[in-house]
Amino acid sequence: MSQMFMEKVKSTGLAHLSYILGHQGQAAVIDPRRDFQIYIDIARQNECRITHIFETHRNEDYIIGSLDLARRTRAGIYHGHAIDFNYGNPVHEGDTFNLGDIELAVLETPGHTFESISLVLRDKSFGNQPVGVFTGDLLFIGSVGRTDFFPDLLKEVAGLQYDGIFEKILPLGDQVILYPGHGAGSVCGSGMAEREFSTLGFERENNPDLKIHPRDEFIRYKIGQKPEQPPYFKKMEEYNQYGAPSMQTLPEPDPLSAEQFEKAMAEGMLVVDTRSPESFAGAFIPGSMAIPLDMIAAYAGYFLSYDRKIGLIVESPNDIDLAVRYLIRLGFDNITGYLSGGMYTWETAGKHYDRIAAVHVDELVRRYETDYDFILLDVREEEEIEQSGMFPGALHIFLGALPDQIDKVPRDKPVTTFCGSGKRAIIASSILKRHGFETVEDNLGSMAACKEAGCPIVK
Amino acid sequence: MSQMFMEKVKSTGLAHLSYILGHQGQAAVIDPRRDFQIYIDIARQNECRITHIFETHRNEDYIIGSLDLARRTRAGIYHGHAIDFNYGNPVHEGDTFNLGDIELAVLETPGHTFESISLVLRDKSFGNQPVGVFTGDLLFIGSVGRTDFFPDLLKEVAGLQYDGIFEKILPLGDQVILYPGHGAGSVCGSGMAEREFSTLGFERENNPDLKIHPRDEFIRYKIGQKPEQPPYFKKMEEYNQYGAPSMQTLPEPDPLSAEQFEKAMAEGMLVVDTRSPESFAGAFIPGSMAIPLDMIAAYAGYFLSYDRKIGLIVESPNDIDLAVRYLIRLGFDNITGYLSGGMYTWETAGKHYDRIAAVHVDELVRRYETDYDFILLDVREEEEIEQSGMFPGALHIFLGALPDQIDKVPRDKPVTTFCGSGKRAIIASSILKRHGFETVEDNLGSMAACKEAGCPIVK
Amino acid sequence: MSQMFMEKVKSTGLAHLSYILGHQGQAAVIDPRRDFQIYIDIARQNECRITHIFETHRNEDYIIGSLDLARRTRAGIYHGHAIDFNYGNPVHEGDTFNLGDIELAVLETPGHTFESISLVLRDKSFGNQPVGVFTGDLLFIGSVGRTDFFPDLLKEVAGLQYDGIFEKILPLGDQVILYPGHGAGSVCGSGMAEREFSTLGFERENNPDLKIHPRDEFIRYKIGQKPEQPPYFKKMEEYNQYGAPSMQTLPEPDPLSAEQFEKAMAEGMLVVDTRSPESFAGAFIPGSMAIPLDMIAAYAGYFLSYDRKIGLIVESPNDIDLAVRYLIRLGFDNITGYLSGGMYTWETAGKHYDRIAAVHVDELVRRYETDYDFILLDVREEEEIEQSGMFPGALHIFLGALPDQIDKVPRDKPVTTFCGSGKRAIIASSILKRHGFETVEDNLGSMAACKEAGCPIVK
Amino acid sequence: MSQMFMEKVKSTGLAHLSYILGHQGQAAVIDPRRDFQIYIDIARQNECRITHIFETHRNEDYIIGSLDLARRTRAGIYHGHAIDFNYGNPVHEGDTFNLGDIELAVLETPGHTFESISLVLRDKSFGNQPVGVFTGDLLFIGSVGRTDFFPDLLKEVAGLQYDGIFEKILPLGDQVILYPGHGAGSVCGSGMAEREFSTLGFERENNPDLKIHPRDEFIRYKIGQKPEQPPYFKKMEEYNQYGAPSMQTLPEPDPLSAEQFEKAMAEGMLVVDTRSPESFAGAFIPGSMAIPLDMIAAYAGYFLSYDRKIGLIVESPNDIDLAVRYLIRLGFDNITGYLSGGMYTWETAGKHYDRIAAVHVDELVRRYETDYDFILLDVREEEEIEQSGMFPGALHIFLGALPDQIDKVPRDKPVTTFCGSGKRAIIASSILKRHGFETVEDNLGSMAACKEAGCPIVK
Repeated sequence: MSQMFMEKVKSTGLAHLSYILGHQGQAAVIDPRRDFQIYIDIARQNECRITHIFETHRNEDYIIGSLDLARRTRAGIYHGHAIDFNYGNPVHEGDTFNLGDIELAVLETPGHTFESISLVLRDKSFGNQPVGVFTGDLLFIGSVGRTDFFPDLLKEVAGLQYDGIFEKILPLGDQVILYPGHGAGSVCGSGMAEREFSTLGFERENNPDLKIHPRDEFIRYKIGQKPEQPPYFKKMEEYNQYGAPSMQTLPEPDPLSAEQFEKAMAEGMLVVDTRSPESFAGAFIPGSMAIPLDMIAAYAGYFLSYDRKIGLIVESPNDIDLAVRYLIRLGFDNITGYLSGGMYTWETAGKHYDRIAAVHVDELVRRYETDYDFILLDVREEEEIEQSGMFPGALHIFLGALPDQIDKVPRDKPVTTFCGSGKRAIIASSILKRHGFETVEDNLGSMAACKEAGCPIVK
Repeated sequence: MSQMFMEKVKSTGLAHLSYILGHQGQAAVIDPRRDFQIYIDIARQNECRITHIFETHRNEDYIIGSLDLARRTRAGIYHGHAIDFNYGNPVHEGDTFNLGDIELAVLETPGHTFESISLVLRDKSFGNQPVGVFTGDLLFIGSVGRTDFFPDLLKEVAGLQYDGIFEKILPLGDQVILYPGHGAGSVCGSGMAEREFSTLGFERENNPDLKIHPRDEFIRYKIGQKPEQPPYFKKMEEYNQYGAPSMQTLPEPDPLSAEQFEKAMAEGMLVVDTRSPESFAGAFIPGSMAIPLDMIAAYAGYFLSYDRKIGLIVESPNDIDLAVRYLIRLGFDNITGYLSGGMYTWETAGKHYDRIAAVHVDELVRRYETDYDFILLDVREEEEIEQSGMFPGALHIFLGALPDQIDKVPRDKPVTTFCGSGKRAIIASSILKRHGFETVEDNLGSMAACKEAGCPIVK
Repeated sequence: MSQMFMEKVKSTGLAHLSYILGHQGQAAVIDPRRDFQIYIDIARQNECRITHIFETHRNEDYIIGSLDLARRTRAGIYHGHAIDFNYGNPVHEGDTFNLGDIELAVLETPGHTFESISLVLRDKSFGNQPVGVFTGDLLFIGSVGRTDFFPDLLKEVAGLQYDGIFEKILPLGDQVILYPGHGAGSVCGSGMAEREFSTLGFERENNPDLKIHPRDEFIRYKIGQKPEQPPYFKKMEEYNQYGAPSMQTLPEPDPLSAEQFEKAMAEGMLVVDTRSPESFAGAFIPGSMAIPLDMIAAYAGYFLSYDRKIGLIVESPNDIDLAVRYLIRLGFDNITGYLSGGMYTWETAGKHYDRIAAVHVDELVRRYETDYDFILLDVREEEEIEQSGMFPGALHIFLGALPDQIDKVPRDKPVTTFCGSGKRAIIASSILKRHGFETVEDNLGSMAACKEAGCPIVK
Repeated sequence: MSQMFMEKVKSTGLAHLSYILGHQGQAAVIDPRRDFQIYIDIARQNECRITHIFETHRNEDYIIGSLDLARRTRAGIYHGHAIDFNYGNPVHEGDTFNLGDIELAVLETPGHTFESISLVLRDKSFGNQPVGVFTGDLLFIGSVGRTDFFPDLLKEVAGLQYDGIFEKILPLGDQVILYPGHGAGSVCGSGMAEREFSTLGFERENNPDLKIHPRDEFIRYKIGQKPEQPPYFKKMEEYNQYGAPSMQTLPEPDPLSAEQFEKAMAEGMLVVDTRSPESFAGAFIPGSMAIPLDMIAAYAGYFLSYDRKIGLIVESPNDIDLAVRYLIRLGFDNITGYLSGGMYTWETAGKHYDRIAAVHVDELVRRYETDYDFILLDVREEEEIEQSGMFPGALHIFLGALPDQIDKVPRDKPVTTFCGSGKRAIIASSILKRHGFETVEDNLGSMAACKEAGCPIVK
């Protein structure tokens, strides 16, 4: 029968980590993503049937793939009992599940959410000492999970997080390998390590968040964090508690000609341009929304709506697959078409396009030194600004809030958008353009370039 | 033993068509490309050994892969006898080669070049009637090969082309399937059909070039054509007669940081930016050369040199493989690095970048109507201008000649580059920028957009 | 917009040829197979949406994928009007469909079946002359379609076939490329060429079936053919007229341990052993049915039933995918498991296995010369025996009829099975073993080896 | 610049584990295999250049790929200084190497061999605590490396092994992840865990070999182990010290017809039949050598010679790639052909084949109980017999020694081969057949089946 195996499935964008492990013909998946075929493929390669699906918690940043995966595999779904799920089976502290010699034991570890569980991994052919633990969004490599989802209970939740880590997880032993629910780049925590392998012993010594003691100090620290909450989180929570629309195969957007694309826009299709900031700046379709491919996971949830058709602009048709996956993981399923041939098709059809001038940081400095009258619009998060300061005189509006606060941006001056590196700046530029701003520029490089160039910075 | 098979291998860029066919354990390749692994793979799938390699002629637009493929497979190489090759075996009219039931018979068909041969395909298990013919650059689908390579013998060569087609190829019969050496998009002919399948019977009736009679008229028609000859053709002819440098594995350019890339530029590395026109327009490295990925095959040979290191800028690392293949097919092997992370890396390192404004055709019309003083630089080929006319007042310099004729472009006015669709315009823009022109714009859409928009045109 | 393209999709086993072609964003599929994802993938690569699905006729040898493909793509389905389909749209002589410059025009060509149509391919950018034709099962390369499906109308049907070929297809012109519905190895015709490319001109001269004249002689010839009709054909006809069960994703058989497999057998699962004849002969599970992987398409339809679970034995897990595809194309969807680890799992679990001795043809000759008393059971088709004769004294029962005629095989003597090459012989051996025969041997090599070895043969 | 990454490359057969890890554009490979392209591919995906290659020791069971990989990448090669390598750079205790934030530090850990080193992994962005260690063949998951390579120094070597583990490796801390040079199934140790992830803390508690104390007891235990040493080890040691023949691309064996294959055999080609035991038993070519695909790594080194051409028999052409890789990793590069179409080709050509009867363990028991006179030839290793006993009356000759000790096997009785599961038994059967034994049978299932069936066993 089949050998013991474990594979980590890393989904870029959300830096979501899911796991599949198995032995002797049976496999379990932990926190599957919605585009679930990859687990079927891995199970097949390992000659296992997926019999168990675990959810470490009701995820808020993506649609969990449990239900669709279970429809294909007949696997059982298991999750914490602290909330009422519309499907699956509640588990309790100490419940164990066996796949050949593998044992997964449930630890109830509320904090990030109340129903959060961790799963302790044992190899029963080597005794009872734990060898790994799946911690969901409780403990990450180099960081801990966010605890801001219950505004009325911030203190309680942060305390539970502390207790779960220090009283349940770390006592499993230094030898335990850590398998968290997210890696660096996730919106579910900040400060995670680039390194994707660690142990409880290493984290105990080196994870900066685990050095904050005592409990009250940790609670204060966590309460002090104010990560952004994209509005789509509410939809994810609803879907993940009551069941999302089934999706056994991915949407296949139609290739559209310039005429068809233009017509669909006129009928209400929202255009998401996934090209790079440079491409968008070079030429874009008026009315389109810039969300570079690798920013979809983090920012589409602020700007797209669930009841509008989506049309894509891509640099290459190869990007469609990833764009679709990023969107459907957030529940934006209604991707009806893409501009076949890309901007070239649009341009050679004689359709109108617009452009955004890229402004180098040296030019910002020159403007600053010459008192040039313009708006530098900084769209970073509050926390980033606290940490690294701002360019003098910049106007700060967080990117996710820009559509609602667009009236705070003066319309009588040129506006240059600014962020950490230029990617969010192009999103902001496209929002301004969609709102009719005339002279919009984009500072490619932004704060990263500022630091290299030695700009003036105010804190 | 293995079944009869035939596969066409289409190499984009040059629209080069090569073929592999075989039966009962043996296979032949016709006009292999330099990155030859694909033939090995197909032969393996069909359980055949490649025993024969045919060259329809000494190709002038790419390095033939015969020698390297023969080094791997021990196959014999066969080509026409009218020039002295430094390798392989000369063949003569009527020579036949057998692979199981497949027979390939040599027809000497000079014209495109003097040593050109065609190969007649028979299935000996079905008698002696030809079922296919490989015509190299003699006859294409919807067109015929160019005959301008021997300026002193234009008339003779065009006449030979006529004779080969009408006295040797077409008499094989209407039932013969046509397998030419190039498809639509090749620089080896113009007016080829998009359709990639045809027969001699269909061409006899529908190929416009085959309706030009009598012989003298055909010769006049061919002499009247003046396709461009990129300077690298000479190198290809030399390589393909005497043997190109061996390349058993493709070059693997190093990922370079912004600092490393800048340093390499300072030491003489030429930067080829393969991104789209929009991306380049949005932001580019001063001094770099724009050659969009799908333009490398047709235009790199005008601008790159064989003794300089090449560094790549790519939109995505996925593009590196194709960029490298396109370059090495033209003999540009010295691809030493690429900017890891792309322009984002450059921008966030605070390095300088420049931009080119995209100008819509409506703006051109407005400028024309208001007598705005600027240069519209049209870089299309002579033939294109004859066919479709020019924007009034435009300055015409063919793209390939631009570096040599750069002094013809006034430096005291804004210059807007213009071509068929905007892709060559961005190349021209980058050349102007490299030569120190200040205000350079690019007309994305160019003549294609003009036609849609109803611009004024002069013939 | 997208370039013109055409791809042939060859499905081994049934040697079924389907086609996808398109231009400018639209594509059509002709005779799609049930596991249809490949068409979606090709359309995506070519940036086309599948808008049309054509069925040349109500296929009898496989489940057509039209309905499932249409469910995914929203394409229209089109077929002949001579029978009432439960879905799709009837077409009539002269109806045309356009995909960019591609035109497909309907020819009604009854014969193989009454509702059979052919589709004439034109490239409208090159005038009105046909360049290709899709003939379904009317005309093949080197052969013509079978005409035995209407036992009461044999003469009429053969005459229609003749008329369709000689009055409608061949008059399209010698220059027309032939795209048939099957290639060599199909059960829908015999004598097809290995060569997969041809034209009407080449067939007119070289297809042996097209040399049979006049019409009456052709009819006599066709009536004289007696190809076998596997019993599953009836099911296919029903499915293809009224709609088969939907299958959007392929079945995923469970990996089973020896115990699980044994239990499932006891509960009625039929075991299909897809390994090679040598493997089966070496060791097999008592009660299992040998159908080597490449024989499933042609023979599973004789032996499997639609209401029984199927369990697989495979040489390698890599074979499961193909075994599943072969089975579901015939409608055998209920593939519930496979023996994980293969026979090794069974053997090391101590379970019982049996073997079949491989007997060389020299031994047959020796037995013949020494009057050894045994049964040589020849399971080939009637036609094969007529063509190549039999080993002296052999008992002939066609493989497909063996289960029904098992009582004709004496049980008191050793039985050696025999066919064309040994593959059907192993199927026959497994049938004998399932029916309790004690001493069963298999002549690997069979008639092919006989010919090489110079056996005695009687006609 | 590129993110931190680490990948384990597992090469089946030898269960060889190599690693590639990198950060910020640089990557290191530890113990690369000879077919090295996979490291190039992984480095490219991660946008890193391979700059360092480490050898934990002069490997004895496979050809290290360092030299060929360095030829492609210009990387430096690093290994222990205790022997004189003909290439690369010696390293010493405490030497460190940096790849972005990754630090690799050298620990000298002689034992398995004198020049063995371990590499301690730190993430410098998280301080100085080790997070991983690459231990080569010193410490495995669930076991330790063998110490039998220096017969005169067994005690010294085992002591060094003990010291390295307990004084250098374990003191790195429980939190350190273990990255050994082999996994379960390797010939470089026994008793390894199926589980492929562990930490020093987990091993300290659960690795049975690490519970053997004090030092003298550990030495006694190690000296008591007597693993087999295949003769090809000597060649590997020579190659890995002085440099193996360069192999930039894998050998491509020719497809051969039955006639060509037979002729090559007559001229001295050794036939290696990689099919399953059942397939070989069903029919095989007289004179061929059975080595099932997954047994090549462990057993080809006993039977093949470096100066003879090798011809393959495969179940499927898909197996050729793996067979070639397994063979060239052991230095058997001269793989000139394979029988195209497999045994079917041989059989239908009328060539002679032989068979081996598969005998079930129940039959063995029956024979035992009825005093049937035959030889049960048990070819397992000494250690296996000590652990699990033997079937009563069996003759024991270790498989690797069988050719030399063939005279110990009586020729006047039927011989049934026996091993752990039947795979080595088929190899033994083929050796007997090659030596002219008449009646040879194979006990598929062997000791594994015996245990399930409850055979008599003597210890």
